[in-house]
Amino acid sequence: MKKTALIMAGGRGERFWPRSRKSLPKQFLSLTNDGKTMIQLTVERILPLVDMEDIYIATNKDYKNLVLEQLPGIPKQNILCEPVGRNTAPCIGLGAVHIASKYEDAIMMVLPSDHLIKVPDIFTETLEQACEIASEDTNLVTIGIQPNYPETGYGYIKMNKEISKGTAYSVDCFVEKPNLEKAKAYVSSGSYVWNSGMFIWKISSILSNLQKYLPNMYSGLKNIQASIGTDSEEDCLISTFPTLESISIDYGIMEKASNIYVIPGNFGWDDVGSWLAIERIKGYDESNNTISGNVIAIDTNNCIIEAKEKLIATVGVENLVIVDTDDALLVSGKDFTGNIRKVLETLREQKAEKYL
Amino acid sequence: MKKTALIMAGGRGERFWPRSRKSLPKQFLSLTNDGKTMIQLTVERILPLVDMEDIYIATNKDYKNLVLEQLPGIPKQNILCEPVGRNTAPCIGLGAVHIASKYEDAIMMVLPSDHLIKVPDIFTETLEQACEIASEDTNLVTIGIQPNYPETGYGYIKMNKEISKGTAYSVDCFVEKPNLEKAKAYVSSGSYVWNSGMFIWKISSILSNLQKYLPNMYSGLKNIQASIGTDSEEDCLISTFPTLESISIDYGIMEKASNIYVIPGNFGWDDVGSWLAIERIKGYDESNNTISGNVIAIDTNNCIIEAKEKLIATVGVENLVIVDTDDALLVSGKDFTGNIRKVLETLREQKAEKYL
Repeated sequence: MKKTALIMAGGRGERFWPRSRKSLPKQFLSLTNDGKTMIQLTVERILPLVDMEDIYIATNKDYKNLVLEQLPGIPKQNILCEPVGRNTAPCIGLGAVHIASKYEDAIMMVLPSDHLIKVPDIFTETLEQACEIASEDTNLVTIGIQPNYPETGYGYIKMNKEISKGTAYSVDCFVEKPNLEKAKAYVSSGSYVWNSGMFIWKISSILSNLQKYLPNMYSGLKNIQASIGTDSEEDCLISTFPTLESISIDYGIMEKASNIYVIPGNFGWDDVGSWLAIERIKGYDESNNTISGNVIAIDTNNCIIEAKEKLIATVGVENLVIVDTDDALLVSGKDFTGNIRKVLETLREQKAEKYL
Repeated sequence: MKKTALIMAGGRGERFWPRSRKSLPKQFLSLTNDGKTMIQLTVERILPLVDMEDIYIATNKDYKNLVLEQLPGIPKQNILCEPVGRNTAPCIGLGAVHIASKYEDAIMMVLPSDHLIKVPDIFTETLEQACEIASEDTNLVTIGIQPNYPETGYGYIKMNKEISKGTAYSVDCFVEKPNLEKAKAYVSSGSYVWNSGMFIWKISSILSNLQKYLPNMYSGLKNIQASIGTDSEEDCLISTFPTLESISIDYGIMEKASNIYVIPGNFGWDDVGSWLAIERIKGYDESNNTISGNVIAIDTNNCIIEAKEKLIATVGVENLVIVDTDDALLVSGKDFTGNIRKVLETLREQKAEKYL
């Protein structure tokens, strides 16, 4: 069966401020040393499985030009611009009806645009396994990540003990972000994996589940589907999409549907969820620093320093994240990067749009 | 007797890097909120006592244009450019022979160009007292600063118990920068003041002392004096000045001469010796931060942040000094600002002249 992909690229990447901005969010940045942006790497990773013309990008209209620039091989009509952000279920539904208007049925892989994967070969193998399972019945498949520490910032998936369908496990339940105590228990049990937000299913499977569990959304999506390729396509999207319920695919479908499978992935996944990820990605020097750009570090330990052309000199500091950009600089304690959002809140209050 | 002043402005101000640079050192910067540079404030403070045409600036040739720009009222011939740095004794001697070539005798006040004084009125009163004492005999007068903590970075002056000449004390001895234990003893004894590097004497007094204690230097200076106003003035300075012994006035004269007096000054003196001085000068906000420029400080305490137009956002940090300039940024732990010199050493090794 034809394989297609929907790459979700509407996020703001606020935890990567000041490098990530409203006008150039994280998925359009290069955070690795190869110069490729995260969304370019995402596309590159799935090209062994999916033709370029079958890759769809869901984003918002502000980022359409960024997608065109960074991914010139993607057909223009495959760039799906959400008029407003409506969480993942409507976004995925929009992708599904576009693919449905092109193919009678097809495999659809739903992938975030802003994750990194260290071993792409294992990733594509895992996706191939997922495609096999997804091609049967109305199976909905998700990729889980084998946890190696009790992260409290991710949702978890509880697997049933017995293996079904070869390497996949049937899903017992999805669980929300746990507290540390619960996370520890999840990790030590061996029965839980992190929810990576990657899904694989047939178009027919996801549409039938949308019809069953989110009938109003399904009906709106079918209206949109009917307009695809007509003169009213854009008008219909603009008038209909904002009426769709804002709900995540996890909550709207995955936690309710049957035939849910999870494949534990061991391909070096990183959601690059904060500046601290940079040291995981780039590694440390002998002083436990992760440094790039024009930096002189004296008596400096355990710091992440992302400089550009401006010289950054550090003297007698530790456990800091320092990130320079043309118009804004961040100096954050490593344990406080979660509070970068407070900077953005302040900027919004000050109507300092240019820094957002 | 005519009052004249020599302002010493040849320093590099390296402890104020990256704001202070080889091409624009500390004395030519404004560190206060009034927009006036330190050397402008120095001149302003003594104008109640000294005519502009009797103020001499000793500096090096690289800074001649800065002096002309910042102090347009100073006669061009009063800007004395040392061909090489030779410590304070030759610098003061050069000033003395220039003044000697203009006046038969005069009071000479020697003042650093990069100190701040909170109460200029008390400062001028103190200088007036010093001028009175200096006008008698061959008295050499220095201004001491009443210490309010055991600073180990300054030299101290031990006063004799008995008051001589009104408000002045005769000097027992000059002592080098002490260790903390000694500094504590000095402060608690009540008999010690900080050596401020400010001196007041008659031209005839300092020249006779130079002749006595530094006869070779005196002889070189007399050669220079003979050339002043002639066609060979510049050549003579360039050939003679580098031959003068590199020695401080403290070590060369003050520790040896008799008739030394010190007046304890209580005029809110600050030598602005490191970035930490900025909080003494500018004060703190409710989070003990001293902030200027475009800054958003979240969960930030006890920091000095000198931003310019670029936004600096701090999150969860404390005890830092953050200083931004157009091409270089410093992030230093407050207890480590003394190691800023290591940054400059590294820059010299890298031949990164533009940042020095």
